[in-house]
Amino acid sequence: MEKGESTVTPWEVKGEVDYDALIKQFGVEPLDDVLLERLKKQAGFLHILLRRRMFFAHRELGDWISSYDKGVNAALYTGRGPSGNTHLGHLIPWIFTKYLQDAFGSELYFQITDDEKFYVNPDLTLEEIAGYTKDNLLDIIAVGFDPKKTKIFCDMEYTKELYGIAARVAKHVTFSTAKAAFGFTDSSNIGIIFFPAIQAAPCFLPQRLTGKDAHILIPCAIDQEPYWRVTRDVAPKLGFRKPAGVYSKFIPGLGSGGKMSASLPETAIFLSDSPEAGAKKIKNAFTGGQPTIKEQKEKGGNPDVCVIYSYLYSLFDEDDKNVMETYNQCKSGGIMCGTCKNRLAEMIKIFLTEHQKKRADAKAMVNEFMLKG
Amino acid sequence: MEKGESTVTPWEVKGEVDYDALIKQFGVEPLDDVLLERLKKQAGFLHILLRRRMFFAHRELGDWISSYDKGVNAALYTGRGPSGNTHLGHLIPWIFTKYLQDAFGSELYFQITDDEKFYVNPDLTLEEIAGYTKDNLLDIIAVGFDPKKTKIFCDMEYTKELYGIAARVAKHVTFSTAKAAFGFTDSSNIGIIFFPAIQAAPCFLPQRLTGKDAHILIPCAIDQEPYWRVTRDVAPKLGFRKPAGVYSKFIPGLGSGGKMSASLPETAIFLSDSPEAGAKKIKNAFTGGQPTIKEQKEKGGNPDVCVIYSYLYSLFDEDDKNVMETYNQCKSGGIMCGTCKNRLAEMIKIFLTEHQKKRADAKAMVNEFMLKG
Repeated sequence: MEKGESTVTPWEVKGEVDYDALIKQFGVEPLDDVLLERLKKQAGFLHILLRRRMFFAHRELGDWISSYDKGVNAALYTGRGPSGNTHLGHLIPWIFTKYLQDAFGSELYFQITDDEKFYVNPDLTLEEIAGYTKDNLLDIIAVGFDPKKTKIFCDMEYTKELYGIAARVAKHVTFSTAKAAFGFTDSSNIGIIFFPAIQAAPCFLPQRLTGKDAHILIPCAIDQEPYWRVTRDVAPKLGFRKPAGVYSKFIPGLGSGGKMSASLPETAIFLSDSPEAGAKKIKNAFTGGQPTIKEQKEKGGNPDVCVIYSYLYSLFDEDDKNVMETYNQCKSGGIMCGTCKNRLAEMIKIFLTEHQKKRADAKAMVNEFMLKG
Repeated sequence: MEKGESTVTPWEVKGEVDYDALIKQFGVEPLDDVLLERLKKQAGFLHILLRRRMFFAHRELGDWISSYDKGVNAALYTGRGPSGNTHLGHLIPWIFTKYLQDAFGSELYFQITDDEKFYVNPDLTLEEIAGYTKDNLLDIIAVGFDPKKTKIFCDMEYTKELYGIAARVAKHVTFSTAKAAFGFTDSSNIGIIFFPAIQAAPCFLPQRLTGKDAHILIPCAIDQEPYWRVTRDVAPKLGFRKPAGVYSKFIPGLGSGGKMSASLPETAIFLSDSPEAGAKKIKNAFTGGQPTIKEQKEKGGNPDVCVIYSYLYSLFDEDDKNVMETYNQCKSGGIMCGTCKNRLAEMIKIFLTEHQKKRADAKAMVNEFMLKG
């Protein structure tokens, strides 16, 4: 793949992603100041993931907030494909979803797409996936969602309600449409071809469960957007509102280029990594620094390509002034990579320690969250 | 469509069907005397649908009987797509299935493909289909299956178990395979593309429910055969036996040519027709008779194209000698169409009266038969 080229589909993110180009390609809108102001007003503060534009694009977020203002059930929907252990990249939409749940007091529908992961991974069995599901559930619950307002469900378990909706969706989606949105070919299996209907189903689940109007907002990474494009086309045919969406960038892996990926374990901070192991990965990460301290002092570093800086900026350093200073100091050669690495490593240690404590507490709460089939 | 041309797929049967050609086209085997003898020995008699070759072809029926002989759970599986009221044509595989259940003491898995009918009928809603399901169930139960050994289930209700198996099947079926077997196109919806996996699932349901080996035999009309071809390819990949099949011809409609079809109500004997209405349809049926009594006496009729004779032969006149005499008398002009019509009309009256009595009794038995999701 040439420099600057990229592939972004629900099953593959490759290359250097140009997010401005994706906005055009996917036909979504950038998050503007008016929307940020509305979110800030409702939440009482602007989340770091918004301030630093990790969440950067949306579809009809404003309409969703207006639905909330009018008293419509403004619910949230996000999900997880349990094909391995959870890493920091997976957590970003969930952290943001919790922010929205806290701000709007929203119901949250959380789908575990165990079927999808079975369809797309030739070597994964349903039994292995069930093991990952059990594990991943703890990470999800550890994020701190409101157990009274959060319904988590697995496709292979909560099947009846989901298939009941998915059948209605599927009737309106031709192979031609699915092919265009997801790149299916003659070699795609008929499970993954049907799956977009299963992933669409939760957009209409609150309506089905309550018989009342609802407006769904989906916080997720931008690679999931093709699902909602297809779902939005079908929604009015079923008499439902189109789901709104708010989309994040990918957090980079700790190596040079590419999103954080479970398939490159040394470049991903797994939520199950020991705090020490997590810190060590940070210390081995790719930076924008010069080969020697001398050169760094003379020429300065490049925070724009530095993974360490990107983590501080996107998620860990809440202090706007501090993060700007770090940027400028790096550029001017006034700060060495070791300093930033040590700072982030400490933050990662604290983050993992706290997450793993909440994860341990989550074990007793699983049943409280689950929708049973 | 030219004379002699025909189309036979699970959703369309058109033209004059050449059953010998279908045997070759579908790669199935004709039912031979050795198999008939084995069935006769087990059942104590040879069913009229076998004697008159309404059931005419099979796949590995002999292996299935051998499995029974070896003590393997030799179970039956058939089904119904609830897109309208049940007619006589639908009943034929069920009557034969009851014969097999009685003979082998087999478990019967009976699938109601409410999802399929939703996917393929643009104008049918799930609510309308649920109405037909409720109605059709009574006709199924009226056939007299053993309630202790018969499990009826609807795809939209008994979804969890079925989807759990269907996902395993679907992973091994590419769009290319499904396209070749079922004639799917880019315009096919993603629901019907996935559906073959749902229809395959009951072939592996007893194994899933009991954890033990089972061998499934599917009695059905020959148009369903593409499903089992695909299922048989997948079975060994899942560690299961390939399902066997035994296939019937179509009973003709009361008009000139074509199978009995609910879309031509005047040419179909619905099980809900009053006995008088049924008798009247018989009296209006297409025969092989001459335009006048005089000509009939002089030239004789043509029982080979006569719908009335075909009903007597295939299903209603158990007496081999009698049916042969009718054939010869017709040919020689010694019998008029009115005589045959009256005889069949009386038989239809009795049949409908008895069926409708059993149908009324069935209302109290539905719960006993249903697998609940």
